[in-house]
Amino acid sequence: MPQSPWLPIPEKSDFSIYNLPYGVFSTPTRRPRVGVAIGEQIIDMAALTARGKFHDLKIPLQVFEQPSLNAFMSLGKPVWKAVRQRLIQWICEENSPLHQLQEESMLPQSDAKMLLPVQVGDYTDFYASEEHATNVGSMFRGKENALMPNWKHMPIAYHGRASSIIVSGTPIHRPKGQLMPTGADRPVFGASQKLDFELEMAAVIGVSSELGTSVTTEEAENYIFGMALFNDWSARDIQKWEYVPLGPFLGKNFASSLSPWIVPMEALKPFVTEGPKQQPEPLPYLQKANPRNYNIHLEVYLQPAMQEEVQICRTNFKHMYWSIQQQLAHHTINGCNLRVGDLLASGTISGSQPDSYGSMLELSWNGERRLQLGEASRTFLEDGDTIRMYAYAEQDHKRIGFGEVKTKILPPL
Amino acid sequence: MPQSPWLPIPEKSDFSIYNLPYGVFSTPTRRPRVGVAIGEQIIDMAALTARGKFHDLKIPLQVFEQPSLNAFMSLGKPVWKAVRQRLIQWICEENSPLHQLQEESMLPQSDAKMLLPVQVGDYTDFYASEEHATNVGSMFRGKENALMPNWKHMPIAYHGRASSIIVSGTPIHRPKGQLMPTGADRPVFGASQKLDFELEMAAVIGVSSELGTSVTTEEAENYIFGMALFNDWSARDIQKWEYVPLGPFLGKNFASSLSPWIVPMEALKPFVTEGPKQQPEPLPYLQKANPRNYNIHLEVYLQPAMQEEVQICRTNFKHMYWSIQQQLAHHTINGCNLRVGDLLASGTISGSQPDSYGSMLELSWNGERRLQLGEASRTFLEDGDTIRMYAYAEQDHKRIGFGEVKTKILPPL
Repeated sequence: MPQSPWLPIPEKSDFSIYNLPYGVFSTPTRRPRVGVAIGEQIIDMAALTARGKFHDLKIPLQVFEQPSLNAFMSLGKPVWKAVRQRLIQWICEENSPLHQLQEESMLPQSDAKMLLPVQVGDYTDFYASEEHATNVGSMFRGKENALMPNWKHMPIAYHGRASSIIVSGTPIHRPKGQLMPTGADRPVFGASQKLDFELEMAAVIGVSSELGTSVTTEEAENYIFGMALFNDWSARDIQKWEYVPLGPFLGKNFASSLSPWIVPMEALKPFVTEGPKQQPEPLPYLQKANPRNYNIHLEVYLQPAMQEEVQICRTNFKHMYWSIQQQLAHHTINGCNLRVGDLLASGTISGSQPDSYGSMLELSWNGERRLQLGEASRTFLEDGDTIRMYAYAEQDHKRIGFGEVKTKILPPL
Repeated sequence: MPQSPWLPIPEKSDFSIYNLPYGVFSTPTRRPRVGVAIGEQIIDMAALTARGKFHDLKIPLQVFEQPSLNAFMSLGKPVWKAVRQRLIQWICEENSPLHQLQEESMLPQSDAKMLLPVQVGDYTDFYASEEHATNVGSMFRGKENALMPNWKHMPIAYHGRASSIIVSGTPIHRPKGQLMPTGADRPVFGASQKLDFELEMAAVIGVSSELGTSVTTEEAENYIFGMALFNDWSARDIQKWEYVPLGPFLGKNFASSLSPWIVPMEALKPFVTEGPKQQPEPLPYLQKANPRNYNIHLEVYLQPAMQEEVQICRTNFKHMYWSIQQQLAHHTINGCNLRVGDLLASGTISGSQPDSYGSMLELSWNGERRLQLGEASRTFLEDGDTIRMYAYAEQDHKRIGFGEVKTKILPPL
């Protein structure tokens, strides 16, 4: 097991040497730049590059002194691998350049402000959890029409809004819009009464594909830079009234929250596991030779204003019916091109048990069941509530965490 | 009427002095840069800036030497206005700097390669023609469910794909995907048999709005830089099988074609006209004080391989039920932010007559009626076909054209 002789890394740290996730940060004296998390520290990649420490890898000086990871991702997978290997080596060596330059090239995470790590091109939201699709379908269309006939044949998805993707810590305002009260014959205008979170994971595309070409399930992983936690905010009442026939629009596009650290695919390799059996067998372009789900524990906490947070959901990413590789193959089968910085979100991750549902819509069964949170109780979210999502993978003494995505809800503007 | 004493502008030119649209072009000796079309010429805005001709307007040197209009648009409406006024003045004056620098700052359009003019952030596609929505609804869901209950209360829209937006002249490949044959119990894989165009216009956002805030119908026009022609390619069979419940995805995101010249909103002012009466009355946030549709003639031509082109559609943009101003107000009513370079497309523009339908789906009534094109005939589009869209506005001896968006269909890769 690699260990550092000079850098203390807490045993249960999210940011062990197995992780080394990338983010973008700033401090009062450091302009936005790329960093790598290790233990409670950040490695300032721009500072190391300025000292010529990646010169032999032909990494241009400006690549890490950027307000996004896009320039670094664009350098391609061999460069990602080489940088990662070098960092592991430097952390493990007593007299490494990183240790020597520790003063100027490392800083405590508590001193940094984390920024949105990716300049998102297109954001696609899948709908890949069978439990979530079945639950929502039952509520919106009745049990007999819960899962549409197409659902088991393809990873259903829609395009979301890139402009309103924000980083963890940025508060959101409750959205306003058209609501159709039950029994009314025309809509009313007002603030959403059914504001909800959606527990998701997002894959960040690190390699572009050509318009007109397709990516196979086997190649898919090569196009992904890493993964993060993602909260796809939803206003269920706005969504319900608008979504037929063209899908969700204003019910979703007011905000989505991303965690600041992108965990490299390389770090997730030990946690690959088999997904659910797919029946009926998908078409050949969606079949995969190897198991490719990921064993990642996921937790959601709700903190009402002036109260302690309460865990409201505990589930696992391995339950997803459609894998990321299948999502990517499906996305490009018609020739649609991917660009560096695109985001592919998984859709809400729900398990089979009521305490593993990844949204208030499911946890409260569309408001029929109040969730008890100490003194408070909830069906949907209220102003002043904070939602915190947390995720980690742990196995064979290896632990990697995704950190958190945490967002407070403010009243409508 | 302003006229040029030194620059010949053909009488029926798309690019009269009333127009002055912006585009991005390159030549073997000029890197991608911003140009303005006038008559049969292009004004090289980068060359004029390099000669200090916009120095007093504080336009940075690099703003026009860019592969997109985004940097120029970001300077804001007062700058757009000042540049436009200056160009009009220079074209009308015998001894203007433009005339003096004609050799280096102007070139024939035939010498230039036109590029995608905008780096598109988010692309939103509306569904704002009542005739189109009614026609499509009748075919896909039956006459009784044609117009959904929400349609007359809000401009329905969904998010499209930005990465696959291409400029006029770029051929597309027929997409492949999942098709559900009538009567079958499982999908098959193959090339789309129902490839279609959609005649649309696109508004280009030139001013950003803040996340959490809304833009009113009255303010909306200030956020729009200009308009262009837009062909939103569709694979009707892929779309039909995938689109419930989250809307169109692979049936649309393989390509959308944009015309190279963006016509400024200023140039469209003389062509403002009243839109259809809206009944029921929309909610207050969608109401508008002034008429705000645009009288723009639209034409679509289909050219089978080795044959002359045939006009297959003739309609007008003024028929749209929901105005651009209403679309923009609706888009932001929930706090969704706009960014410079976003595209808001109108949705297919159809009139009430069968020869005014803006898609093959409607023209052939989902394949029931073959369209005669000289010797050939069509229900949907075939490999080798070219679709050309053309648009212009004309009134009181003022004529402005949008040029064309022209795309050839190649076999699947």
